[in-house]
Amino acid sequence: MIELDFDKGNGLLPAIVQDYETNDILMLAYMNRQSWLKTLETGKATYWSRSRNTLWVKGETSGNVQLVREIRIDCDADTILLKVEQVGGAACHLGYKSCFHRKLSDGKLKIVEERIFNPEEVYK
Amino acid sequence: MIELDFDKGNGLLPAIVQDYETNDILMLAYMNRQSWLKTLETGKATYWSRSRNTLWVKGETSGNVQLVREIRIDCDADTILLKVEQVGGAACHLGYKSCFHRKLSDGKLKIVEERIFNPEEVYK
Repeated sequence: MIELDFDKGNGLLPAIVQDYETNDILMLAYMNRQSWLKTLETGKATYWSRSRNTLWVKGETSGNVQLVREIRIDCDADTILLKVEQVGGAACHLGYKSCFHRKLSDGKLKIVEERIFNPEEVYK
Repeated sequence: MIELDFDKGNGLLPAIVQDYETNDILMLAYMNRQSWLKTLETGKATYWSRSRNTLWVKGETSGNVQLVREIRIDCDADTILLKVEQVGGAACHLGYKSCFHRKLSDGKLKIVEERIFNPEEVYK
């Protein structure tokens, strides 16, 4: 069993989530040891929600789960990279494929993706 | 001027660093407001070193600077994504293109990249 340096982030490590086919970055979330082990066990990306202070199986509400296809760990063992298959095609709770759908352009943030779902219909 | 939520991470936000051509993830580092503003001003990725507790112009020592080609901000404005041109082709201090050169395979971490430089020759 490999050991991650959970101490470094006071128990929480960042997990970068990347589309396993296109390499687009979908989101960044946080994992504690429990969510890391649950991700390994189930093959579904499971995080720790810092706002709700609870374990968070991504897609529990929306159905847009993330099936883990590959896991990479960085040189310091303090960052996780998940390459996933994003069910439903959208990772962002605002309905976009990626949480990084805004690009900095002339000092302003400009939306550069199309919306895939309407969050008002998905999160009732 | 756009506002990032630096309070959320006690003044430090994660910055995902991605190759602007291949979309490969090179590394993850942290930025405080000072390093964020310096990155915008200089066009060279500048982070906050948590271990050395100082501003860190990536590539200062090795020459492997990161020229920022695009910046994306996530939906919560608490994560930065830099798409960069990695001078020298290697972002990792161990001599690999990516800090994420280890893949989890059968419960073990396996190196899946070739070394680009020898760190003993670069960091004297």
